[in-house]
Amino acid sequence: MPPQSEFRLARRVQFYETDAAGIVHFSWFFRYMEEAEHALWRAAGITIHPPDSEIGWPRVGASFQFRRPLRFEDEFEVRLRIAEITRRTMRYACVLMQGDTVVANGELTIACVLKRPNEPMKAIDIPADIASRFQAAADD
Amino acid sequence: MPPQSEFRLARRVQFYETDAAGIVHFSWFFRYMEEAEHALWRAAGITIHPPDSEIGWPRVGASFQFRRPLRFEDEFEVRLRIAEITRRTMRYACVLMQGDTVVANGELTIACVLKRPNEPMKAIDIPADIASRFQAAADD
Amino acid sequence: MPPQSEFRLARRVQFYETDAAGIVHFSWFFRYMEEAEHALWRAAGITIHPPDSEIGWPRVGASFQFRRPLRFEDEFEVRLRIAEITRRTMRYACVLMQGDTVVANGELTIACVLKRPNEPMKAIDIPADIASRFQAAADD
Amino acid sequence: MPPQSEFRLARRVQFYETDAAGIVHFSWFFRYMEEAEHALWRAAGITIHPPDSEIGWPRVGASFQFRRPLRFEDEFEVRLRIAEITRRTMRYACVLMQGDTVVANGELTIACVLKRPNEPMKAIDIPADIASRFQAAADD
Repeated sequence: MPPQSEFRLARRVQFYETDAAGIVHFSWFFRYMEEAEHALWRAAGITIHPPDSEIGWPRVGASFQFRRPLRFEDEFEVRLRIAEITRRTMRYACVLMQGDTVVANGELTIACVLKRPNEPMKAIDIPADIASRFQAAADD
Repeated sequence: MPPQSEFRLARRVQFYETDAAGIVHFSWFFRYMEEAEHALWRAAGITIHPPDSEIGWPRVGASFQFRRPLRFEDEFEVRLRIAEITRRTMRYACVLMQGDTVVANGELTIACVLKRPNEPMKAIDIPADIASRFQAAADD
Repeated sequence: MPPQSEFRLARRVQFYETDAAGIVHFSWFFRYMEEAEHALWRAAGITIHPPDSEIGWPRVGASFQFRRPLRFEDEFEVRLRIAEITRRTMRYACVLMQGDTVVANGELTIACVLKRPNEPMKAIDIPADIASRFQAAADD
Repeated sequence: MPPQSEFRLARRVQFYETDAAGIVHFSWFFRYMEEAEHALWRAAGITIHPPDSEIGWPRVGASFQFRRPLRFEDEFEVRLRIAEITRRTMRYACVLMQGDTVVANGELTIACVLKRPNEPMKAIDIPADIASRFQAAADD
């Protein structure tokens, strides 16, 4: 059963996130999505980047559809859910909301890899204790 | 006839673009793509953001598929071409290369808007002199 | 009487703020300081960057002494106080703390300017209602 | 004899470096200074961050005085010189120029440290081959 529950992160636009067009630079939406991802992992009781771990989670794909601009000091919400867990990847679906208005829709796919000094990253299966934790979190 | 010619930007990874995983943070790929876009516009003899202009070019969609990591001081090339021009939008296709190796593939869609103080952005047709310039650049 | 009260902002290190040395990139400390500044202004009931205002607050000087590194997901506190208000400038003193440990000490000086389209910025006196608000906040 | 020669880096303002005030966000000046530092090291034949090195160069102090704003697509020059080398630290002096106009003056102090997994960073003497290289570069 795919996880359905949604994680919500409240956020406010910082000045350094805006650009000369007076709105949030589009690259920031991807960072907002990742902030929510890492908060989701913390909510599940783990960190995505433990010190000295040999396991990593590089991003393999990311996209956003931008519907409305965000401006300095705007408050918004990042809603993130795990859309799919495969043996070696996880895919998140993300919606940014301002009140009841959709600001943007995003998607992020990450892969589980082994990373060792002087070796290229190598795809591996998601450790069972991590996969199960998200399954558990998803079933709440 | 859609523009086919490709714009190339040589770039080197800066330290502040890396993250604690030792590789370029994925949000930077979107900035690399935009750097190439703005350089392409300059090569076409115009700027995408003239001072005090009422015309703007918000991003309406952006995506990347990440194939290989980039690391500090790596040299790479951003290859950008105009994949499509419609009446009100432009779509770029982007490839990041390290030598002969594909690092990532991206896509960026922008829309032409009128932006006036205290009014929401409003979609408008791409001005003819801008559209023709890219058509001309594309035919080189 | 110079304002003495201290504003405190709780913050957690985001992944995109780290670099390949595994610690927060030093440029981020300046952004942390500014985040606290803008939160201080909001706490005083105003925004430092109202839409379409002709008044701006460019930074004229900024410095940091870095004492300890911050790492991914570290929680810390930004403590900011107004160290000095002159006729045309404000100076903040900033300390970043992790528990009882000083992480860094910073300073930021901003000036009040008039900014009009096609004119260079021009230094002006800080509006009385703004100066008084900080004086009031400072007296709390 | 203190090193006197000056390293020069040509740079153009990118859109994502600007903020809603229409100018480069002040945090970027610190990154420009560091870009020039790393280019100076490359010009001296070395990299400041070799893969898997146990030696690191954390920043211990940084400051800027901002004199004029930079705007989107402005071309400028970062001039960096080694102002002082001590047994364990290096200090750079930096000037950003637009043509003959001083945009900003900065300073950056870095320390040489040993960094090992699960140990705090420890200050060490600058390796002789590195110190001598900068001395050599400085004497050009």
